[in-house]
Amino acid sequence: MLLSKLFIPITKDLPSEAKIKSHQLMLRTGMIRQSSAGIYSWLPLGFKVMKKIETIVREEQNNIGAQEMLMPTIQSADIWKESGRYDDYGEEMLRISDRQKREMLYGPTNEEQITDIFRSSVKSYKLLPQIFYHIQWKFRDELRPRFGVMRCREFYMKDAYSFDLSEDAAVLSYNKMFYAYLKTFQRLGLKSIPMKAETGPIGGDLSHEFIILADTGESKIFADKRIFEVPINDYKDIDASLKKMRSDFSKFYAVTDDKFKSEDFDKNVEKNNQIQTKGIEVGHIFYFGDKYSKPMNCSVDAKDGKKVFVKMGSYGIGVSRLVAAIIEAKYIDEKMKWPKAVAPFDVVIIPAINKNDNSNLEKARKIYEELKGKNLDVLLDDVEENISNKFKKHDLLGIPYQIIIGSKTTKDKLEFKEIDKNSEMMELGKIIKLLKK
Amino acid sequence: MLLSKLFIPITKDLPSEAKIKSHQLMLRTGMIRQSSAGIYSWLPLGFKVMKKIETIVREEQNNIGAQEMLMPTIQSADIWKESGRYDDYGEEMLRISDRQKREMLYGPTNEEQITDIFRSSVKSYKLLPQIFYHIQWKFRDELRPRFGVMRCREFYMKDAYSFDLSEDAAVLSYNKMFYAYLKTFQRLGLKSIPMKAETGPIGGDLSHEFIILADTGESKIFADKRIFEVPINDYKDIDASLKKMRSDFSKFYAVTDDKFKSEDFDKNVEKNNQIQTKGIEVGHIFYFGDKYSKPMNCSVDAKDGKKVFVKMGSYGIGVSRLVAAIIEAKYIDEKMKWPKAVAPFDVVIIPAINKNDNSNLEKARKIYEELKGKNLDVLLDDVEENISNKFKKHDLLGIPYQIIIGSKTTKDKLEFKEIDKNSEMMELGKIIKLLKK
Repeated sequence: MLLSKLFIPITKDLPSEAKIKSHQLMLRTGMIRQSSAGIYSWLPLGFKVMKKIETIVREEQNNIGAQEMLMPTIQSADIWKESGRYDDYGEEMLRISDRQKREMLYGPTNEEQITDIFRSSVKSYKLLPQIFYHIQWKFRDELRPRFGVMRCREFYMKDAYSFDLSEDAAVLSYNKMFYAYLKTFQRLGLKSIPMKAETGPIGGDLSHEFIILADTGESKIFADKRIFEVPINDYKDIDASLKKMRSDFSKFYAVTDDKFKSEDFDKNVEKNNQIQTKGIEVGHIFYFGDKYSKPMNCSVDAKDGKKVFVKMGSYGIGVSRLVAAIIEAKYIDEKMKWPKAVAPFDVVIIPAINKNDNSNLEKARKIYEELKGKNLDVLLDDVEENISNKFKKHDLLGIPYQIIIGSKTTKDKLEFKEIDKNSEMMELGKIIKLLKK
Repeated sequence: MLLSKLFIPITKDLPSEAKIKSHQLMLRTGMIRQSSAGIYSWLPLGFKVMKKIETIVREEQNNIGAQEMLMPTIQSADIWKESGRYDDYGEEMLRISDRQKREMLYGPTNEEQITDIFRSSVKSYKLLPQIFYHIQWKFRDELRPRFGVMRCREFYMKDAYSFDLSEDAAVLSYNKMFYAYLKTFQRLGLKSIPMKAETGPIGGDLSHEFIILADTGESKIFADKRIFEVPINDYKDIDASLKKMRSDFSKFYAVTDDKFKSEDFDKNVEKNNQIQTKGIEVGHIFYFGDKYSKPMNCSVDAKDGKKVFVKMGSYGIGVSRLVAAIIEAKYIDEKMKWPKAVAPFDVVIIPAINKNDNSNLEKARKIYEELKGKNLDVLLDDVEENISNKFKKHDLLGIPYQIIIGSKTTKDKLEFKEIDKNSEMMELGKIIKLLKK
């Protein structure tokens, strides 16, 4: 892609409500644009990052055997009346009346809808255990949407739902999802902590939040630092191993400020293992048994012929929120560096261009074609602009690798730079190898 | 995937409103499930097919240099008041009032929204020409939704928007999109006819519908059959070649029944070239100049410094509708055959299983693992069921290739069948090669 043709409209005058750095950076690099309060368009740069996150989330759901489907955004109010949540949900639910005056709503979550699908289709235990998921737009009519896509009204979310015959089996599904979440955040280049949580309006008995570390996070975290040494990659998607994983994590104290008690902290964690940091919630998992299956009469025939209300859990990851959360974690000292797995481009070529001499641009074009031929997703900064302005701009765009074409370039070697490291002179072949890793 | 674990809940009692064969098949093979009038959930089988269609649509948009973004589903009524369409649009627009009593709506199309993004970001001709697209859910509150996803309320659509400085330049963008559409439908295994069309509520000067052939189509088509011989693959994405493409297509008469006049048909088409058939609209492209840019004051500075209202076009493909349209085209004599490019699985393995002998299932499992190892997306029908029932079921599921493990199987050769052809005995290596092609 040529930067001169890429649509990244930069907002120079930041609106006063852009108070956190992810919101500011997303506007300054044209990743998003507000269309109305708490509702955003995702412009090409932001869209690309979000799609890469979505792909990783999807792959890790598929890896644990979850099946993807897609439920609609607009739901009938009837199923919410059955579960009893229609009146409870309050004004955050966007209620809609269609032309026939039917009560509809824009789904803020999908427990009712998936339960309705399941009860009408599955009559026997044979299909269990089962996990379904979808990645779909949701709406919560926040009174005061703020912080950009971190707390907006229309947001993109992966939500999964597990169905089991017994509580014991349901905990195994819960553990699988716990594992998928650890893997997902690891692939996104983030440090995550699973933390025991309240179940809130979803309800239920067992719940964990997944918090990623960021200095600017909304939640204060108090933890035993050894929780970061739990060897995620040693566990396997096998019940016994996942049980051990749960138990290993539960050994280490970790709470957010709403649960924090100084005397508990000191009792449970030695002074030199205590850390206090900040984080952002990016995932939340729940086990809630028959909270929905019972009022909605969702049962299957068990092996012995008895009807059993299915035991359910639900599991969310905020996909659009993660774009901002990654920025909060990775945008440090006015320099953004996207994790390789979700960077909007693999590499950017930055030629020093001046009006009377196109030779650097010409060299850059050749390298651009060569890298494209190797299936690398390359951005060429072909804009006529002072080189130091270019560097400032790329510090914000955050593409992790740069090839700089200027006075240092020789016949054989190019200046290659990883953001936040020193540049090196390197042959193109070696650069390609490194980028392909 | 094991069929015993795949969630394809089959609707046995078809609802009375399922009058067309795509709607019936989608319910009978558990591709979709209605959640409320004209609103559907996409279950795993339907979801997979739709995603494959989406990927092809996306690739062909990218191939002509269109940039992907994503606009939200919920829009502010304000921009529709600016364009003058808020009152015109009628009851098909789903109007929403949020908790602050702001007038919002669920977008049925996005001309206003993209114009708003463009005008606030682009001030100079330098970014032109430009094409943006997104693939997003839309809503039209049909009074009588029917025919399943063919005429539903919440639907998935690719819509693109072009921006140019002059009408001449805009026609070049129009031609590019015309070309992308031909390529897209060809890759989907469909015969499409571009047909001059009325511009309707979108407005404008120039418009084509893309109709694909299907015996059960909603529109009658009268055409010169030589239109199918226009050599799509000979054109290139170069202005002169695309101009020739447009002119080559325009030589051949092709109209739907609303424009049909028997005397015109006879005057323009020799008797032996006349065909009369049926089709389904799956795409529609429009050029409408400054119809939106003028009332919404969307202008750029031209080279000479003068302000020019941008000249726009819009271009839609019904992604969810295409799933049904492909069925209408490919489901013949009670046998469905998905085009290879969008089939839910590459191949299905069908072992004859009986209660006392698991040997066929064991053989099938080995082949299943081997094919998965070759990155083929395989379905294994491990359900204990009479083999003739299995064949009937797979005639509906429409996976184009089958490996049948039964009495004919030898040590070296397997029974391999392409739907609608005779089976052949073949070595596994040869089958893999054929599937990989």
